[in-house]
Amino acid sequence: MERIIIKTQTARSEILIGENWESVDGMLPGSGVVIITDDNVLDIYGDRFPQFPVFSIAPGERSKMFEVIELLAEKLLSAGIDRTGFILAIGGGVVCDVAGFLASIYLRGIRCAYVSSTLLSQVDASTGGKNGINLGNTKNVLGNFRQPEFVICDPSMLHTLPDEEFFSGLAELIKTAIIGNERLFEMIERNHEGILRRDTELLSLMIGMSVNFKASVVSEDEKESGLRRILNFGHTYGHAIEISGLARHGFAVASGMEIATSFSLLKGLISEREASRIRDLLNQFNLLREYNIPDYQIEQLILHDKKKTGTDLHFIFVNGIGKAVVEKIPVAEVLSFYKYYKSGKQIT
Amino acid sequence: MERIIIKTQTARSEILIGENWESVDGMLPGSGVVIITDDNVLDIYGDRFPQFPVFSIAPGERSKMFEVIELLAEKLLSAGIDRTGFILAIGGGVVCDVAGFLASIYLRGIRCAYVSSTLLSQVDASTGGKNGINLGNTKNVLGNFRQPEFVICDPSMLHTLPDEEFFSGLAELIKTAIIGNERLFEMIERNHEGILRRDTELLSLMIGMSVNFKASVVSEDEKESGLRRILNFGHTYGHAIEISGLARHGFAVASGMEIATSFSLLKGLISEREASRIRDLLNQFNLLREYNIPDYQIEQLILHDKKKTGTDLHFIFVNGIGKAVVEKIPVAEVLSFYKYYKSGKQIT
Repeated sequence: MERIIIKTQTARSEILIGENWESVDGMLPGSGVVIITDDNVLDIYGDRFPQFPVFSIAPGERSKMFEVIELLAEKLLSAGIDRTGFILAIGGGVVCDVAGFLASIYLRGIRCAYVSSTLLSQVDASTGGKNGINLGNTKNVLGNFRQPEFVICDPSMLHTLPDEEFFSGLAELIKTAIIGNERLFEMIERNHEGILRRDTELLSLMIGMSVNFKASVVSEDEKESGLRRILNFGHTYGHAIEISGLARHGFAVASGMEIATSFSLLKGLISEREASRIRDLLNQFNLLREYNIPDYQIEQLILHDKKKTGTDLHFIFVNGIGKAVVEKIPVAEVLSFYKYYKSGKQIT
Repeated sequence: MERIIIKTQTARSEILIGENWESVDGMLPGSGVVIITDDNVLDIYGDRFPQFPVFSIAPGERSKMFEVIELLAEKLLSAGIDRTGFILAIGGGVVCDVAGFLASIYLRGIRCAYVSSTLLSQVDASTGGKNGINLGNTKNVLGNFRQPEFVICDPSMLHTLPDEEFFSGLAELIKTAIIGNERLFEMIERNHEGILRRDTELLSLMIGMSVNFKASVVSEDEKESGLRRILNFGHTYGHAIEISGLARHGFAVASGMEIATSFSLLKGLISEREASRIRDLLNQFNLLREYNIPDYQIEQLILHDKKKTGTDLHFIFVNGIGKAVVEKIPVAEVLSFYKYYKSGKQIT
């Protein structure tokens, strides 16, 4: 079991990797706890949940809306949860987003922790304290930065994940490797078979490397005013694809990373060989798919990207395997590269 | 003009007392600003607002609901407000609560500032960074702690306040005097006439004393884990009365202070003379009224008070004019004192 500590200006969070999720019982206060989960996780693991009231939400992105926060808040009030209360989220990114946001605003903030049940949330979503809900078509419009007290990442839970969900998470793992850890990148290249059979020890090791990198970034820049932006590699184009509803987060980010890699190559930041290694790795796990999204729609969505500041946007380029750099560039350039890329002129 | 600085672990806030509110224009960024106000304030002051988009909400507590936050967030998105955006609230407690909460969660937090237009918000609500919206009958269930960058308190704006609103604010001013500043208490005792005619210089002085006290408390304990609780003097019974819908905040708190004063007297924490001075001052401005609220309803509301922790509650007693003390006492004792008090046996 690996224990990674995240320390920010105001909080301390422990990420426990390879810990048996059922040991969470011993980490909770004796009373005032509620569990928030989704119907899928409840079906599979519910009979082994700690003995506290459970509130379950519908699985998927559509639960990231304020009506759900309001309904849960009413349930917490009815259950008598006061300022000493504790929310335990058991689930993937959506559950942790909803529960984390609720915990950050219920009675102006109560304690919370996560048991992360998906690869995506283990490698990414549950570390760093971001939460949020969507507004119409725009992702994470309302949210907060708030560190959970602890996060348990138990890779044995990943055996029950549908393939699509598993590979969606894998894309974020690859993202971390590309932007921050060449050794992790090589490990993913070399362990294709072990990853496919979801080897628990291998995954523990790789999740640990991913979280370690993210933890170092978040400890330095919790509120994403600088360094933390590199974690958004692949997300500018990726979010636009994801919002179209045609792709899960990880697959959308994989395509976004492919485009950003081509952009980096065009800018002379990486070699053709490095660009090929990135594309090959994404292809090796079948993460790059064709999406039939009209260009104008992608452009509209990029224009509304919340990472946009004025007419510029912080775009993340890769400048070597394991290294990334943030550059503030005009939104117009992001749009025109997209057109150039789509027209088939990308450098391969 | 008096400038009071609030420094917390993560933020710095300036409260400008006696500043002409129209000078706010010079304190704003050149672009990306939106103004949030209510229809009453817009009617009176709208033609002198800085030249930025204005979003106006319905006046009063009913706007403190999530639908309003969501609607405003949509308007901000449409107006192209990104992470560099700035919300200026111009209004009373409700406007500042709604705008402050929105600013704390929109795109995970954007900048904000307030022009406080009511006495209640000048002496209390706009200092300290608390914000919140209600859920059904329960006040401030969802909210946050977030310091605005600056708050302008211009007492000349108080001349347009309806009497009820003015006196409601006066009750909070008296609260601060009771718990933290004997000199302010004496000043209010001695300046009945000046207060009634809303003398701008007198009010500036008294608001400054009130904010100074609150600022010192908040700087020490932003998140209300200890000292800050004393600011809730009168609020346990007061909130229960307010929720009944029969009284404005300040009047409800005035009655709550009267009950808490009697409770303090019963506990031997203050002398009969001190209790009389407090009651006399509240009566001098006609702040104590009769509310016909069934006992069981008050009890229910106290049981659901969000300041309750488990079966206990932090109750604020006065132990001398200008001094208060927090004691954790059983909720049952709070309820039984209320019955005792209502049965007319209060010590007078």
